[in-house]
Amino acid sequence: MALSKKPTTGMKDILPQEMRIRDYVISVIQDTYAQFGFTHIETPCVENINNLNCKAGGENEKLIFKIMKRGEKLNINEAKEENDLTDSGLRYDLTVPLVRFYSNNQASLPAPFKALQIGPVWRADRPQRGRYRQFYQCDIDILGEPSNLAEIELITATTTTLGKLGFKNFEIRINERRILKAMAAYAGFAEDSFDEVFIILDKMDKIGMEGVREELVKAGHTEESADKYLALFTGLNEHDNDGLEYIAGVLGEYLDSDIKDNLSEIITAVEATKAAEFKTVFDPTLVRGMSYYTGTIFEIAIPEFGGSCGGGGRYDKMVGQFTGQDTPACGFSIGFERIVLLLLENGFEIPGDNKKIAFLIEKGIDSKRLSEIMIEAANLRKEGYQVLVSRMNKNKKFQRASLEEQGYTEFKDFYREALKN
Amino acid sequence: MALSKKPTTGMKDILPQEMRIRDYVISVIQDTYAQFGFTHIETPCVENINNLNCKAGGENEKLIFKIMKRGEKLNINEAKEENDLTDSGLRYDLTVPLVRFYSNNQASLPAPFKALQIGPVWRADRPQRGRYRQFYQCDIDILGEPSNLAEIELITATTTTLGKLGFKNFEIRINERRILKAMAAYAGFAEDSFDEVFIILDKMDKIGMEGVREELVKAGHTEESADKYLALFTGLNEHDNDGLEYIAGVLGEYLDSDIKDNLSEIITAVEATKAAEFKTVFDPTLVRGMSYYTGTIFEIAIPEFGGSCGGGGRYDKMVGQFTGQDTPACGFSIGFERIVLLLLENGFEIPGDNKKIAFLIEKGIDSKRLSEIMIEAANLRKEGYQVLVSRMNKNKKFQRASLEEQGYTEFKDFYREALKN
Repeated sequence: MALSKKPTTGMKDILPQEMRIRDYVISVIQDTYAQFGFTHIETPCVENINNLNCKAGGENEKLIFKIMKRGEKLNINEAKEENDLTDSGLRYDLTVPLVRFYSNNQASLPAPFKALQIGPVWRADRPQRGRYRQFYQCDIDILGEPSNLAEIELITATTTTLGKLGFKNFEIRINERRILKAMAAYAGFAEDSFDEVFIILDKMDKIGMEGVREELVKAGHTEESADKYLALFTGLNEHDNDGLEYIAGVLGEYLDSDIKDNLSEIITAVEATKAAEFKTVFDPTLVRGMSYYTGTIFEIAIPEFGGSCGGGGRYDKMVGQFTGQDTPACGFSIGFERIVLLLLENGFEIPGDNKKIAFLIEKGIDSKRLSEIMIEAANLRKEGYQVLVSRMNKNKKFQRASLEEQGYTEFKDFYREALKN
Repeated sequence: MALSKKPTTGMKDILPQEMRIRDYVISVIQDTYAQFGFTHIETPCVENINNLNCKAGGENEKLIFKIMKRGEKLNINEAKEENDLTDSGLRYDLTVPLVRFYSNNQASLPAPFKALQIGPVWRADRPQRGRYRQFYQCDIDILGEPSNLAEIELITATTTTLGKLGFKNFEIRINERRILKAMAAYAGFAEDSFDEVFIILDKMDKIGMEGVREELVKAGHTEESADKYLALFTGLNEHDNDGLEYIAGVLGEYLDSDIKDNLSEIITAVEATKAAEFKTVFDPTLVRGMSYYTGTIFEIAIPEFGGSCGGGGRYDKMVGQFTGQDTPACGFSIGFERIVLLLLENGFEIPGDNKKIAFLIEKGIDSKRLSEIMIEAANLRKEGYQVLVSRMNKNKKFQRASLEEQGYTEFKDFYREALKN
C-alpha cells in the first residue's frame, strides 16, 4: 500500500514557526495560572465510550472518533451496530474528562481544586478552512468552590494571561443562566420551552431583534410573549452602565436579588483588579450552548476576531453524575487555537529570544579541530546562546540566507587546513 | 449506561505533583535542545492506517489503537476484516510521523532539519505495572546531515539535558550496525541470518556468553561460527580502553576503516565536549531492536535504572520510502517516562519555584473589601508570587495543613467585619 505524505483528513502538521508561538502561549498560560494557584493535570486522550456518550457533550457526541475493540473482544461477524465494535474514543473536550478525573482522584486533591489542562481534543467535523479535527483546548476549572470567588479568579487569571500576550480592548461578556430563565419566565414562555427560546435568542448577533421575534412566533410562541421578551432588550439600550440593575428592576420578583448581587459583585471585583485593558460587560443575550451550565456564564470577545475567543461558566450539577454527590464547579476555556492564529497573523514577536549563532564547518575537517569547535559551541551555549553547528554547504550564500531567515544573526566559518604537499 | 470513574484500561490520570515534574522536564528539554538549534514541531496523534502499517514500526504495528471509519464509509454488514472498518489509528511512535512530516513539508524546512518532538504515543500492550498504553516520547532527529556531526550533536544535546536534570555517572553505549554486520560476517554467519544472530546477541546481558552460544547453535548455526563470534567478545575484555581499535584490528578487511574512524571521531568529540558526568563506551553487543537502523546506534544507561533510558541511531533509508529519494537521518529518543519516574522516586526538587502565599477569606465578606483583597493579590502576583485566593473553611487548621502540603508557606486571613447592632 502506498504511503501517504499528507496528514490524515482534516488534521495538520505544525511547522517550527507556528510551534514557537504555541510554545510561548503555553508557557505564558502555565506561568500565569500557576500564579493564581492553578495546578496542571492531564487525563488520557482516550476515554471510555460510555463516558463520552454521557450527554454532557451535546452535539459533540455525534463527532467522536471511535476506537475499535482489540483482540478477542472484536467480533466483526456478530456486530450489528457501531457500539458493538468500539469500547473507547478520543475526547472531544476537556470538561467530561476533568469531571471523571475529579471523581477518580478526589481524595488526593485539595479542596477547592483549581485545575489547568492544556491538550488536544478531536472532533470529526466536516473539514473546512481554518478548522481542524485535532485542536488544542486550554481549560481552567475550580471544583468545590460554591462562592463567586471562583468566577472572579477564573476571569481575572484569564484576562491577565491575555494582557501578557499583548491583547487589548477586549470584552468579557457575562450573564447568568438564572437571569436568562427569569427573563423568559417574565415574558410568559413555558418553562419546558426555555432552551428553545435561548437557542433563538443566541442568534441575536446575526438576525437582529426582528429576526428573533419572527423565529419565536414561528416556533409557536405567542406574539405577546415575544414582544414582552424583546421589550426587555430594547429597554436595555438606554442603560449601558446599569443594565443589570435595570433588568433586575423590571423583573422584580421573577429574579432573586441574591443572584443579581452575586453577578454584580463579580463584575465589580474583576473591574477593580484588572491587569489588562478590557471591559466587563453584562450581556443578557449571552446564552452559551451547553445545557450543563447552572449559573454565571461568560465569554471573551476580541475585536480583531469575529465571534467568541473563549468562554465558560458555572456547572454545579455535572460532577454529581459521576460521584452521586453534587460539587460546585466553574470553568473557563480559552480559545487557544484562535489566540495562536491572531498572534501569527499579527506577526507577534516573542520577547527575550536567545541570541542565535551559526557555526559552519567545512567537510573533511580534522578530528581534533572538530572537538575544539564542539567545545567552543558548548561554552557559548552555557552562556545562553543558541548555537547551530552545521556542515558548510557548497552554496554558502544560499545557506546563509536560509539561516538568516531562521533568525541566525552571527556566523562563524571553520575551514579544514590546506593539505600539505 | 453507568459512567466510569477510572481512566480507560491501561491509561492513567496525571496528578499535579507528577505533572509539575513533567512540565519541568519538558521545559529543560525544550530550552536545551533549542540552544542546539533544534526546532519544535508537532504532527497529529492520528495517522493514516497505511502509514502506521508501513513495516517501519516493527512489533508495534500489532499494538495499534485503530479508529473506525465514520458515516457512510463505515459499512458494518459488508465488513469481513478489521481493515474494512478502519482508516486511521493512534501513532505508536514519533519516527514514522516525523518521516511523513518531512516528506510533506520538506520545501518549507531548512536543510539539514533539526526537529524536536514531545508528545503522547499509544500501544495496546498487555497492561502491567508501571507501563501504560498512553505514554510520552521525546525525540530529536536530524534529517539531511550525512556526516557524524549529526551523531555528535544528538548525543551532546541529550547528555547536556540529562546533566541539567541532575543525572550523573550514566553511560552512552555506542555501536555501529556495519560493525555488527562485519563481526557476523567475520564469524562466518550467512548474511540472511544476521538479524537472527543479532536478536540472540541482544540477550547477552541476560543469558551471558554461554547462553548466547547455546542459542546460536540451537538456531542451526555451526559451532565453529558461534565460537569464532564469541571469541571476539572475550577478546574485548582485555581491551577496555581501546575496544574499537582492537575489534577493527581483528576484523581486518571485513571492516572498512572509514567506519571505524567515523565512530572513533564521534566518541572523541562527545567526550571532549561533555557538559555532564558520563562515559561514552563502545559496546559491540549493542543491537537496538529496529531493523531500520543503517549506521551508528546508541543507548543511554543510567545506573539507578536497569535497562536503557533512551537510545537511537542513524536510519538513512527510511525517508526514501515516502519521498522516493534517500535522505540521511539520525535520531535520539529520550526515555521521558523513565526520567520522570526516576526524578519522582528520588524526591527531585524543582529549582527556583515561586514563593507561595495563601489568602483565606471568610464567607460573607463585604463586596468592597473583596475587591481590595483581589487587588492586593494581583499586586503580589505582579511581583512574581504565587497567590492562592480561597474561602476560609470552617476547619481552619485542616485547611492550613493541606495548603502547607501543597507548598504554601505564608498565610493571610481576611475576616468579615462584625455586624453592627
